[in-house]
Amino acid sequence: MNKYRILIAGGDMRQIYCANRLSEEYEIGIIGFDKSIIPECMDMSFTDVSHHKKYDYAVLPVPPLDDNGNIYTPCCSEILSPQALQGFLSENPIVFAGKPSEKLKNSFPNAKISDYLLSEELNIKNAVPTAEGAVKLALEELPVTLNGLNVLIVGMGRIGTTLVRILQGFGAVISVAVHSTRGAAKARLYGVKAVSTKHLGNNYDLVFNTAPKLIFDKNTLEKFNDNTLFIDLASKPGGIDFEAALSLGLKVIWALGLPGKTAPVTSGRIIAETICSMLEERSEDIE
Amino acid sequence: MNKYRILIAGGDMRQIYCANRLSEEYEIGIIGFDKSIIPECMDMSFTDVSHHKKYDYAVLPVPPLDDNGNIYTPCCSEILSPQALQGFLSENPIVFAGKPSEKLKNSFPNAKISDYLLSEELNIKNAVPTAEGAVKLALEELPVTLNGLNVLIVGMGRIGTTLVRILQGFGAVISVAVHSTRGAAKARLYGVKAVSTKHLGNNYDLVFNTAPKLIFDKNTLEKFNDNTLFIDLASKPGGIDFEAALSLGLKVIWALGLPGKTAPVTSGRIIAETICSMLEERSEDIE
Amino acid sequence: MNKYRILIAGGDMRQIYCANRLSEEYEIGIIGFDKSIIPECMDMSFTDVSHHKKYDYAVLPVPPLDDNGNIYTPCCSEILSPQALQGFLSENPIVFAGKPSEKLKNSFPNAKISDYLLSEELNIKNAVPTAEGAVKLALEELPVTLNGLNVLIVGMGRIGTTLVRILQGFGAVISVAVHSTRGAAKARLYGVKAVSTKHLGNNYDLVFNTAPKLIFDKNTLEKFNDNTLFIDLASKPGGIDFEAALSLGLKVIWALGLPGKTAPVTSGRIIAETICSMLEERSEDIE
Amino acid sequence: MNKYRILIAGGDMRQIYCANRLSEEYEIGIIGFDKSIIPECMDMSFTDVSHHKKYDYAVLPVPPLDDNGNIYTPCCSEILSPQALQGFLSENPIVFAGKPSEKLKNSFPNAKISDYLLSEELNIKNAVPTAEGAVKLALEELPVTLNGLNVLIVGMGRIGTTLVRILQGFGAVISVAVHSTRGAAKARLYGVKAVSTKHLGNNYDLVFNTAPKLIFDKNTLEKFNDNTLFIDLASKPGGIDFEAALSLGLKVIWALGLPGKTAPVTSGRIIAETICSMLEERSEDIE
Repeated sequence: MNKYRILIAGGDMRQIYCANRLSEEYEIGIIGFDKSIIPECMDMSFTDVSHHKKYDYAVLPVPPLDDNGNIYTPCCSEILSPQALQGFLSENPIVFAGKPSEKLKNSFPNAKISDYLLSEELNIKNAVPTAEGAVKLALEELPVTLNGLNVLIVGMGRIGTTLVRILQGFGAVISVAVHSTRGAAKARLYGVKAVSTKHLGNNYDLVFNTAPKLIFDKNTLEKFNDNTLFIDLASKPGGIDFEAALSLGLKVIWALGLPGKTAPVTSGRIIAETICSMLEERSEDIE
Repeated sequence: MNKYRILIAGGDMRQIYCANRLSEEYEIGIIGFDKSIIPECMDMSFTDVSHHKKYDYAVLPVPPLDDNGNIYTPCCSEILSPQALQGFLSENPIVFAGKPSEKLKNSFPNAKISDYLLSEELNIKNAVPTAEGAVKLALEELPVTLNGLNVLIVGMGRIGTTLVRILQGFGAVISVAVHSTRGAAKARLYGVKAVSTKHLGNNYDLVFNTAPKLIFDKNTLEKFNDNTLFIDLASKPGGIDFEAALSLGLKVIWALGLPGKTAPVTSGRIIAETICSMLEERSEDIE
Repeated sequence: MNKYRILIAGGDMRQIYCANRLSEEYEIGIIGFDKSIIPECMDMSFTDVSHHKKYDYAVLPVPPLDDNGNIYTPCCSEILSPQALQGFLSENPIVFAGKPSEKLKNSFPNAKISDYLLSEELNIKNAVPTAEGAVKLALEELPVTLNGLNVLIVGMGRIGTTLVRILQGFGAVISVAVHSTRGAAKARLYGVKAVSTKHLGNNYDLVFNTAPKLIFDKNTLEKFNDNTLFIDLASKPGGIDFEAALSLGLKVIWALGLPGKTAPVTSGRIIAETICSMLEERSEDIE
Repeated sequence: MNKYRILIAGGDMRQIYCANRLSEEYEIGIIGFDKSIIPECMDMSFTDVSHHKKYDYAVLPVPPLDDNGNIYTPCCSEILSPQALQGFLSENPIVFAGKPSEKLKNSFPNAKISDYLLSEELNIKNAVPTAEGAVKLALEELPVTLNGLNVLIVGMGRIGTTLVRILQGFGAVISVAVHSTRGAAKARLYGVKAVSTKHLGNNYDLVFNTAPKLIFDKNTLEKFNDNTLFIDLASKPGGIDFEAALSLGLKVIWALGLPGKTAPVTSGRIIAETICSMLEERSEDIE
């Protein structure tokens, strides 16, 4: 058993599964969850958090704070303020959080705050539940099989290539839209047809966008027929002009946070594994 | 345009899509559907069915009759009796139906009744929506990704091999249970591990059964841990002792009629294509 | 250790590997091989064949006899006549042979002769080394990558479907030529394009034929450009008019006996496993 | 037709195919090849190189110079000195070359020298012929099928992942050796087992190394049995202690320059496409 003591504070079921996975290697406490939501099979002992044994490490969810500046605790009927949480932490704790805001930093002035969403390991691993979640959406929304379907995938990054692999298994007819010769070369590697993002055709039944820049503007969307289903996986502004799509009667699903929705157990495990790696790197740096 | 005139009588949305697909090649009439449920994009002219132009061919759904002996019309607020239907048919019509009962034969004494569910073409094609529907169920039920999951597939027929192909795309860890060296040879062809149905291990997260005989009796089920999800795709008695599974607290989904549920458009198209092939064979026989 | 005693008589290296695999379960003798060709790693004791302990079972190669009516022994500097072989066998032996001729039956009048080439297990398993051997030929002959290549596969039987699987891994652009709706349905299952054998296009770089009937007659061949490589895997007459292809300057490889050439060890193992199954079935029949 | 005039000088057949591909878009001359080796189907006009119309661009092979400091011309019976070549080039030419040495730079003092081997596009694209060439070697060397074989792939870069894709099509049992959590995450993405490069097991039939650092030292090699085939695809020092392997009786193939050997046409086309992209980028920079 490793020396680290880690407190998991707030978040949804993913953080519970994260706690469970971390408890295989570390001493774990959890706070910010109603006891009733914890699955029976889990070790309840890690809910016995006391002020006397302080934790050096804390794991906060994504986002770490709610709108009122308290810890984001959707699975808890009580409020958990940063001050209350600090009472359980040692003087200079390490706080792992997803997308930490300035407010969070101000709330934990003595902590070293580390953003696990920046970890490449986490991002590679999250491509799988994201792609699976996207395929699940397509299976649920479409009245036809994926087999034989004309699918366009925009972007050949991790999510795009994972989608290609899964959809090839289904026997879909796949094209990928790329905006560089590098992307076209990657498409060739996967044995799929590459088209330029500048000259998108229109005979697609299903479009997955993974690129974080506007590709489907009004002009481009007008070319598509209204049976096409768009699933946008890109964060922030997304790649599809939502308003324009709406006015054209096109069906667009803006699918965010798929890992947590589709596969909360896997998702929690990925966060846990990422934190394990970050802890190991830290200890290697120190030695 | 071909000479045949075909009347689609009753059934769910699949039969509407079947009608739509058949209308590309034949003159189609439909009866036994409320007009309100017909999608806008379809040619409404084929709802103008009259007693004056009789149909030589009729397509009935699966099952063709309801419990009262009327045509099975779940999408219609009115009753359609065999006698009423006969008024639209010529003297010696050909009636295509799924699993026609003795009762049906008695209701249409002058008709030649042809069971499209016996068509090998239909059964091969239906393997795809069945397998996709099964995978959709797994994605919806499981809190983990299919990637990396230990999956057992029982049977290496059409549905089993299609499941293998799809799940390989997801990166699942696949074993197939077979009961002959022939099945083991097929497993090798697909690059997956074969285990004997007589010595089933227990470390599976997900089990798909496609074999129509009892394989998971109480003894076998007792070996599995209670997180395992069973999806039974086999018709009639199925391959899993449901009662025993229930008493052991195992989760079993008995998934029947997946093609119609998962992909009604594809499913209707498959029925249409099968009927096209049956008609072509008939005309070749005659010539 | 099982009771059976089996004598492997003649053939190429495959039969040696077959002997080696069978020796895991049975008592094996070999005859009709020069000692020098036996790999060092093998158990040499099974070359000690004597007239005193007769064998109940013999395994002969494909073909079992040479043109002079002796056992086919390409790896032996001495002649092995059927009479000499009979001296080592019991009175009513079981003789396993590939494609046994009338002459063979006459040479072993008291034996029960069993053709292992008729075993479905063997034929399923041989699809793999056949397809791998065909792909190896293509890799050796073509100055381009299989990735991105336009490939036509004729036939969706075991070899055809195995070729599809392998070539999809390479990222080839695959069409399959089929002559029935059943074949077209299978193509859809694999997610590849189906074309009719009656209307073959011409823009293929590589053609694999697996169908045992003449598909590429002069008329059809004339449509192909002279860079196309044809690999014919069908036995007996084959599917390509060789003469016509030659006169048109097309490159055709008639590839027979690929399992033994490409993968003699696997090939020998497959024969051994087939004989094991045939022996097991026999003993089950008796019990 | 584009304005650029390009002179292809020396190299093997790849450069001929490169010239052929470039001639689709540019005005091409070739020098440093015997006319007899040029395939008939090619446009011979581009061998009419004269001193009067100077070229702004030259394409040299890999390596560009031979041991005597002349242009590397393995397909030419005459010597081509840098001075002679310069007579055909304009005053400040752009010279594309693979791995240009200091000597080359000194031989063309007024030229801007550009190394096409540094292009990411070329390196992505070359992963395909490299992986296909490696698989071809395995098919030729091994007496067993790739199907069912235990294969270890070291490294999950472009070549490693392409190998995974191809070998999955064959139905091989694949493990990948990685040395970071990032590599392990990529392995999971592909649905293959990841092992640490530090703890390599021994039960592999075939090992592909793609990592450019010493992984198979004497200690590690000693664990492998002597039937294992090693194929080293890593450049420069390679990943296998060749001497140690030799002394242990292990079979190692150090496979370099596979793209040119396996698929010279594709390989030449890749060089051509890379030069096209480099020319386009240049013209965009200028505009």
